[in-house]
Amino acid sequence: MTTTYPVTPRTRVRRHSERGSYDRELVHSILDGGMIAHVGVGTDRGPRVIPMMYARDGDTLYLHGAPANQVLNRAASGVDVCVEVTLLDGLVLARSAFNHSMNYRSVVVYGQATPVTDDTEKLRALDVLVRRITPDRADIVRAPNAAELAGTRLLALPLSEVSAKVRSGPPKDDPADMDWPVWTGVIPLIVVQGEPQPAE
Amino acid sequence: MTTTYPVTPRTRVRRHSERGSYDRELVHSILDGGMIAHVGVGTDRGPRVIPMMYARDGDTLYLHGAPANQVLNRAASGVDVCVEVTLLDGLVLARSAFNHSMNYRSVVVYGQATPVTDDTEKLRALDVLVRRITPDRADIVRAPNAAELAGTRLLALPLSEVSAKVRSGPPKDDPADMDWPVWTGVIPLIVVQGEPQPAE
Repeated sequence: MTTTYPVTPRTRVRRHSERGSYDRELVHSILDGGMIAHVGVGTDRGPRVIPMMYARDGDTLYLHGAPANQVLNRAASGVDVCVEVTLLDGLVLARSAFNHSMNYRSVVVYGQATPVTDDTEKLRALDVLVRRITPDRADIVRAPNAAELAGTRLLALPLSEVSAKVRSGPPKDDPADMDWPVWTGVIPLIVVQGEPQPAE
Repeated sequence: MTTTYPVTPRTRVRRHSERGSYDRELVHSILDGGMIAHVGVGTDRGPRVIPMMYARDGDTLYLHGAPANQVLNRAASGVDVCVEVTLLDGLVLARSAFNHSMNYRSVVVYGQATPVTDDTEKLRALDVLVRRITPDRADIVRAPNAAELAGTRLLALPLSEVSAKVRSGPPKDDPADMDWPVWTGVIPLIVVQGEPQPAE
């Protein structure tokens, strides 16, 4: 298995190309660090972008929704889709308004998705998805029954045309601003779990 | 000013319509709570979705990027765009794998964006944007100069065709599962600021 994804006209990072990467391990780590994918399709009424739960298994990205989900159905029809996942890592505070920025890690995937019809593959993908939400419980919750499997739509999108983009590190101030008297640096942003709220 | 946005064929929430809302205050609060907008446009090579910084001012959403940003340029050409912002609020742990979910608040905006060419409007939008990153510092950092203003692209997208979708509260377990012996409830997810990392 190669360690990088091929660069294509759609995935070549143009703006701040130094932030671009096609490294498979990096792409996987970003996808595995996110919880929500932003899924775009074209429609007769223009583009639509909606948030979806997803799971990665090897070089396949599974998009998850209800059978009546319009964007999933549109994506299942074989049209091009674009899926984006972004992790926000920090606020970058510079001396000038212009040089303010954010640290982030993002992935963009292009391709065509196909419905998962095989129940074994579906169960495996759902298992990955539940483990993302609750790693310790996937083996002890009630497993999907036949009706639930039929009532879950999963699309498989191959990770083949994909790129990552990452900004990290301190602000980049202009040399002329170095004496401007404000604090500069990065405020990390971290997602933490709050106090569990038990159901009644 | 009306308190709700009109429902259009594009914004009518179909799946889980009870989660849908067109309430202006709710829409604004979600947009003001997020940092990254997921901006979708159609292109000759299919849909593209990329993350962007944004700011809301009244009923205008400003999308921010470099003049060379391809998606911004595409959006500036007058095509339909779709902008989505999602806040992830919690992991919803149910008794069955199927009923696992996430609590979230999302907004989807449809429309056409126009480039902001007026420097006064640009400065005001940039001020809102910088205050989102660093509320206390917008008045003390160096303000944008003419070259920086020219080097910043802002698009204005009117908030007119927009909807929100919100899931909150505990898992919804099947009555038949109520004796299944696992913890159920919600794990809140909260974004916190880490220890500031001063630049050298």
